[in-house]
Amino acid sequence: MEASVVVVEDEPAKIRSKVGEFPGKIKKVAEDDPRRIVHSFKVGLAITLVSLFYYFDPLYVGFGSSTMWAVLTVIVVFEFSVGATLGKGLNRGLATFLAGTLGFGAHHLAALPGDKIQPILLGIFVFILATTVSFLRFFPRMKVRYDYGLLMFILTFCLISVSGYRDEEVLRMAHKRVSTIIIGGFTAVFVCIFIYPIWAGHDLHNLAANNLENLATFLQGFGDEYFTKSSERESNKASLQGFKSILNSKQSEESLVNSARWEPRHGRFKFRHPWKHYLKMGSLTRQCAYRLEALNGCLYSDVQASPETCAKFQETCTELGKAMNELAAAIKTMSPPYSHCAHIAKAKNAAGNLNSLLRTGLRKDIDMVEILAVATVASLLLDVLACTEKISESIHE
Amino acid sequence: MEASVVVVEDEPAKIRSKVGEFPGKIKKVAEDDPRRIVHSFKVGLAITLVSLFYYFDPLYVGFGSSTMWAVLTVIVVFEFSVGATLGKGLNRGLATFLAGTLGFGAHHLAALPGDKIQPILLGIFVFILATTVSFLRFFPRMKVRYDYGLLMFILTFCLISVSGYRDEEVLRMAHKRVSTIIIGGFTAVFVCIFIYPIWAGHDLHNLAANNLENLATFLQGFGDEYFTKSSERESNKASLQGFKSILNSKQSEESLVNSARWEPRHGRFKFRHPWKHYLKMGSLTRQCAYRLEALNGCLYSDVQASPETCAKFQETCTELGKAMNELAAAIKTMSPPYSHCAHIAKAKNAAGNLNSLLRTGLRKDIDMVEILAVATVASLLLDVLACTEKISESIHE
Repeated sequence: MEASVVVVEDEPAKIRSKVGEFPGKIKKVAEDDPRRIVHSFKVGLAITLVSLFYYFDPLYVGFGSSTMWAVLTVIVVFEFSVGATLGKGLNRGLATFLAGTLGFGAHHLAALPGDKIQPILLGIFVFILATTVSFLRFFPRMKVRYDYGLLMFILTFCLISVSGYRDEEVLRMAHKRVSTIIIGGFTAVFVCIFIYPIWAGHDLHNLAANNLENLATFLQGFGDEYFTKSSERESNKASLQGFKSILNSKQSEESLVNSARWEPRHGRFKFRHPWKHYLKMGSLTRQCAYRLEALNGCLYSDVQASPETCAKFQETCTELGKAMNELAAAIKTMSPPYSHCAHIAKAKNAAGNLNSLLRTGLRKDIDMVEILAVATVASLLLDVLACTEKISESIHE
Repeated sequence: MEASVVVVEDEPAKIRSKVGEFPGKIKKVAEDDPRRIVHSFKVGLAITLVSLFYYFDPLYVGFGSSTMWAVLTVIVVFEFSVGATLGKGLNRGLATFLAGTLGFGAHHLAALPGDKIQPILLGIFVFILATTVSFLRFFPRMKVRYDYGLLMFILTFCLISVSGYRDEEVLRMAHKRVSTIIIGGFTAVFVCIFIYPIWAGHDLHNLAANNLENLATFLQGFGDEYFTKSSERESNKASLQGFKSILNSKQSEESLVNSARWEPRHGRFKFRHPWKHYLKMGSLTRQCAYRLEALNGCLYSDVQASPETCAKFQETCTELGKAMNELAAAIKTMSPPYSHCAHIAKAKNAAGNLNSLLRTGLRKDIDMVEILAVATVASLLLDVLACTEKISESIHE
């Protein structure tokens, strides 16, 4: 009994604290990416524009209640990036047109044998089409690019063929609906492209460069951090964890590539910019991040080593970090990284020195426990070096 | 000129080969998960059921052209798993109801000051609501669970408040629309649950167990593979790569958890099954997979070691594999892993032996190059062991 009273008394306090946190959350969401506010206003504008059709008599008379479809299309099609909006708009437009034609045909075919058989035939058509298209949606290629189109295809086919059973003027209805959908689609695309456009291609490009910079930050920090005592370490560590976002970046990268492929020429990107190439580079970057994750695991142990070893270690890490940074800069400026060879070569050299030091020098001075620990890190760094070379080759392409 | 002729001649051949591949692709998509065929038929059935409203006069008379919304709802709400369908259905139902009420209020409020100001007021309402709700969609928590509901909220509010400007019988229209949407939603949910249901919770549970089994397969194979010469290795390797799917499993895991949370009690899962716990376990499994990825990178080098080292290595790997397999079995049977301690303890023991062997024994016999290589693998295996212990603790919870 008491417990339940406490719970009841607690609820308002909980809600109050949640409400108190709300402004902070709004600020955070807006600060993380200020374009979100712009996007929200753009959506509001596009919907308000399209709802003007209801308010002005000359516009409304032509389309009547089909105007609804324009509003519906804007709301559903409007996405954050230009590419995603174009992709959805084209999917919807094409699917509506094709399914409308097919639905119209099915309606007439079913009407041929007579009134009694018509509903049965229509039912069979709808069943076959819905089943087939639902299955098509499982094909990986279809899922990636045309999932929304296939859904709209089923929708339009059913609405045209089945509601045609009641409404004799199918053709006129279909015509009106297609026109309003096209109007809605164009409004969405127009507002999306011409008012502060957000390009998926641009985001993808920045993501690739930022990921490399995160790798560089970790590598440059790691060299110092590895030989610091664990007691002095805690404060500095958050800055090293930026690379963790790369580990799970695959899906967001794929959806950006997919959106970018719908986008027209913009900024420094041509129409047929090799967007798929970013997937390859992303996968190499992740390979590298997996190694860093393993390196990160090594940070927890206290290791002491001779100053010579420390220096060689730090040199390798720093050079690797510099090489990564240069690769990132090369992506940003979209120029092939002429000078990168210098840093990668230096990193190779440093790694070579480190390795030979471990092979010969350590044997005499240092305890095996430490060799084992240091060897792991050295071998992982060599892996990272190999990854870096591959990324560099991939950027050259 | 010639080149273009070649291209034109090539196109049909290309298309023909693609068409030729098509049956094979269908077979593959169906074999990968036979439930896809069942799902397709279920979608067809649900749509056919709901379109019956058009064919029977007594049903049609009540709703008229609003019947369209039932068809639309079924098509949009019907998802692969029960949880996803329920989530979308509830989102749609709740959003339609709330936005309908609000839209109705807005319509009446805007009508108060007179005919001339009404469209301006309506426009302002629509703009404010669309902007606010679009911004809300960026909140991570909202995005995960209520994204679709928020979209439907904008949609319904606009349709009710704006189209009410033309159609005087707003209330009757709204009432009809809500009823048909509820009918559509219920049809989708009914077919989804009562005909061969596909539970997201079940899939999530199996995914967790399969991931551990994949780790086990790699670990057990790795022990033998590592000391095999690279020339003899190629054939056996594909079986080891199963763990790679774990690396990018985060998003699919999250969406399964999200769907599973909407699901009612089913099979061995209670209503408030701790689904969120699977995310924690999944993240530990991925931690482990990252280490295996680093281990996998070590496979390419030819290493020779004394038979004693080989044996210790293989013992560690095998015991780790067995421990993983037992954890997987514990998840599958949903019983706490009583006997797992045996294998984890054995693995710990074997790893300890291996480590001391490296520290003392190798120093005399073997070249440092090999120590460095072997040490890396050993240290990664220790990491894997630590991960395994954490996974085991997490299953106990």
